[in-house]
Amino acid sequence: MTDETAPIRPEARSPRGFMDRRARDLVAERQILTAVSAVYERYGFEALDTGAFEYADALGKFLPDADRPNEGVFALQDDDEQWMALRYDLTAPLARFAAQNWETLPKPFRRYAFGPVWRNEKPGPGRFREFTQCDADTVGSARPEADAEIIAMAAEGLAAAGLPTGSAVIRINNRKLLNGLLATAGVSDERQKLGVLRAVDKLDRLGPDGVRLLLGEGRKDESGAFTKGAGLNAAAAEAVLAFTAAGGGDRSSVLARLADIIGGSAEGDAGLAELAAIDGALKSLGVSEAQAVFEPAIVRGLEYYTGAVFEAELLLETTDEKGHAVRFGSIGGGGRYDDLVARFTGQTVPATGFSFGVSRLASALRAAGRDMAADVRGPVVVIAFSQDDMAHYFAAAGELRAAGIAAEVYLGSSGMKAQMKYADRRLAPAAVILGGDEIAAGTVTIKDLDLGRELAAGITDNSQWREQRPGQINCPRTELVATVAKIVRGG
Amino acid sequence: MTDETAPIRPEARSPRGFMDRRARDLVAERQILTAVSAVYERYGFEALDTGAFEYADALGKFLPDADRPNEGVFALQDDDEQWMALRYDLTAPLARFAAQNWETLPKPFRRYAFGPVWRNEKPGPGRFREFTQCDADTVGSARPEADAEIIAMAAEGLAAAGLPTGSAVIRINNRKLLNGLLATAGVSDERQKLGVLRAVDKLDRLGPDGVRLLLGEGRKDESGAFTKGAGLNAAAAEAVLAFTAAGGGDRSSVLARLADIIGGSAEGDAGLAELAAIDGALKSLGVSEAQAVFEPAIVRGLEYYTGAVFEAELLLETTDEKGHAVRFGSIGGGGRYDDLVARFTGQTVPATGFSFGVSRLASALRAAGRDMAADVRGPVVVIAFSQDDMAHYFAAAGELRAAGIAAEVYLGSSGMKAQMKYADRRLAPAAVILGGDEIAAGTVTIKDLDLGRELAAGITDNSQWREQRPGQINCPRTELVATVAKIVRGG
Repeated sequence: MTDETAPIRPEARSPRGFMDRRARDLVAERQILTAVSAVYERYGFEALDTGAFEYADALGKFLPDADRPNEGVFALQDDDEQWMALRYDLTAPLARFAAQNWETLPKPFRRYAFGPVWRNEKPGPGRFREFTQCDADTVGSARPEADAEIIAMAAEGLAAAGLPTGSAVIRINNRKLLNGLLATAGVSDERQKLGVLRAVDKLDRLGPDGVRLLLGEGRKDESGAFTKGAGLNAAAAEAVLAFTAAGGGDRSSVLARLADIIGGSAEGDAGLAELAAIDGALKSLGVSEAQAVFEPAIVRGLEYYTGAVFEAELLLETTDEKGHAVRFGSIGGGGRYDDLVARFTGQTVPATGFSFGVSRLASALRAAGRDMAADVRGPVVVIAFSQDDMAHYFAAAGELRAAGIAAEVYLGSSGMKAQMKYADRRLAPAAVILGGDEIAAGTVTIKDLDLGRELAAGITDNSQWREQRPGQINCPRTELVATVAKIVRGG
Repeated sequence: MTDETAPIRPEARSPRGFMDRRARDLVAERQILTAVSAVYERYGFEALDTGAFEYADALGKFLPDADRPNEGVFALQDDDEQWMALRYDLTAPLARFAAQNWETLPKPFRRYAFGPVWRNEKPGPGRFREFTQCDADTVGSARPEADAEIIAMAAEGLAAAGLPTGSAVIRINNRKLLNGLLATAGVSDERQKLGVLRAVDKLDRLGPDGVRLLLGEGRKDESGAFTKGAGLNAAAAEAVLAFTAAGGGDRSSVLARLADIIGGSAEGDAGLAELAAIDGALKSLGVSEAQAVFEPAIVRGLEYYTGAVFEAELLLETTDEKGHAVRFGSIGGGGRYDDLVARFTGQTVPATGFSFGVSRLASALRAAGRDMAADVRGPVVVIAFSQDDMAHYFAAAGELRAAGIAAEVYLGSSGMKAQMKYADRRLAPAAVILGGDEIAAGTVTIKDLDLGRELAAGITDNSQWREQRPGQINCPRTELVATVAKIVRGG
């Protein structure tokens, strides 16, 4: 029954997990990037932009072992048979860039970057296969002050983006502390250490008792499924739990408590010394105790990091779809990773950085009551009645634009009513009416659309509406710009 | 002879045709996008961002017919076997978006967009496989005024980006003119029409005599290779050549000349009426005769456009690598395309737009002597002498940043000399020296690095250098910010 002469028409849809974003979202995200870029540049970080594709072997984590790898990344084979893949973050391309240009770069190399990254994962609600990240990293400095500076910049960046004072905190930990503690307890197996990190990472969800089981033999959940534990003995497990409970209060007091628990192992002492130096630098950089705390329970991913780790968290409670209060949670994080450049060169290059998702920060700002998208307005719409008067309409729109007011002449083919509906849909603040009568009389009629909507809410009778013409002003044509400006700027 | 215990290290390199861009390029491109976006928004165009991927059938032009298509686009197969490809321009995604959301969009729908596009072509000098485009389009208006507005916006956008007055012109043509002329000459075969467009497109390179051959039987080039012609008879070929030569002078005079050559065919008359309406609207919009001209020799691509076409050209001569004077040529273009949305819906939706490549416009600005990248400076560098005095260094950097001056503490591990070299490489305007002596005396030493470089050029004797310390100022610590500000702001 198919009509073979009918053309085949593709369906208009985009691939799953890819988003079309309209002005409201874009305005908020651009404002974030502009504000954060300014902060990062003030700290001496230079902009860098790398291409969307990297060779798959340079990305590393996802080396193609199948004929066409499609797990985790979007990969394809180039003409010369080499596999390339879209970047899944901004750190791997930085490591490649730094290794490639190390000889000629100023060192330490400090760069910030933002742009889309791609993950070939199952999309879901709020989970996309393309999203924008914004990163700042210092490559080539082993000093704890470099970590402190990244933390200070992150705090200042979040504030500049619009997060109110006190609404976010950066929690700081150091991988070396737990490593030192485990060394003291005789744990040196890397897989066992990873098991400990995984257990600690579940502290929020399972509480100390659940984590105690995961640190030991294992834990059976409500469904009866058994998760094998890290296999620590009871003393070691208690030491780890005491360590994760050592947070709270100002940074010095946490350090003092940690020294009691960790002290004695070389790696633990190194971690403590780094945190002490970070604390000192944070004080010099003016980062308050409320903005940045030491929190031994923070894990921040599993492998990858080699020293300090940090996580920025929104402190506000928000409500989920069901109206339940939920913690918003992490809005970004980072840490020290000293081995990424060495993948290419064999030479260890110390590096540290912070990364956040731009859409997620925009959501956090909305949750914190700073919805910049609410200010997004359409242009003033000049109503078009007659082809003969186009020059009048364009002149009016031109005058408004010259005064910095967004304005357009309606260029569709519909009548007055549809044009007013168009102005409404565009969230136009005002409509400009230059009918034959107005042009002849040298006047112009201006509709204040916000005021009109407000007043209309109080008028139920249609004839009353027609008489009152709420929010409608007739003024001399020469007063067009001043009158519209008053409406647009709310003056 | 390979050492099997050595780890396999990937080479640090990026795929061919993909670029790493440093601050100098990025600053220029961001400034262009900020300036142009402001103009487009003032004209009532709203921002839109679509995902990097589209389904291959939605992109249309490059339907995958091979197992893994790699001609023209970067394509890969999704988990559900559907082919998707990275967008190769911003128009195809707009057509998909408009078709998908047509019922709910305000109409006409006016959007601007910028972002990377990808072309899987052979890279070469100045030819990349990823580059940034910036587009503005009106979808849903058949009025010639919509074309005129796009042209006015393009002209204002280029000026706002920094192109000096008079350095660029927008040339306008209309596909309907040549179609009408060919209809009068009895040419209706689409392939023959395409041959005529191809011949006219070579006017710049071959001149009228070469094009005459290509309009007729064909042309043999210097190498002896023969290009088959469009097969017009002599009278038709001369009419086409007369048409292409009808440019020059103000828009009305070109229209008058064209009326003599084209007049009489329905499609030609429609084209003339559209150009007359565009001329009228351009006048209302304040677009001068120098900014926008009618030029019948403009072809602007081959298929795709259905009415008015426009091309922005930089008028300045520049020099190529060999020092020869060359015309810079096109910096953007666009036109009316009424069939793209119909691919999805079957319903013709009139549309018109303008697009430019951001890197190319940045090159044009450099050619026009507006190299914004020249202003890119590094941060003020605070020299680090001793770990014990870190708090002093951070305090100084913090004060400078609080005054809006980019500043950083050197966080590498090298000595004074390497730190000064670092400051030089970062294009730092000044270095701040807080040695033990300065700190004890409550002073600070500031090196004006630009002045130092200037003065150093006149000093050949090293001992003289040490005595004079060119560009070096010692002042009370309290005057740090004011002194550095004077240097940075050139006051």
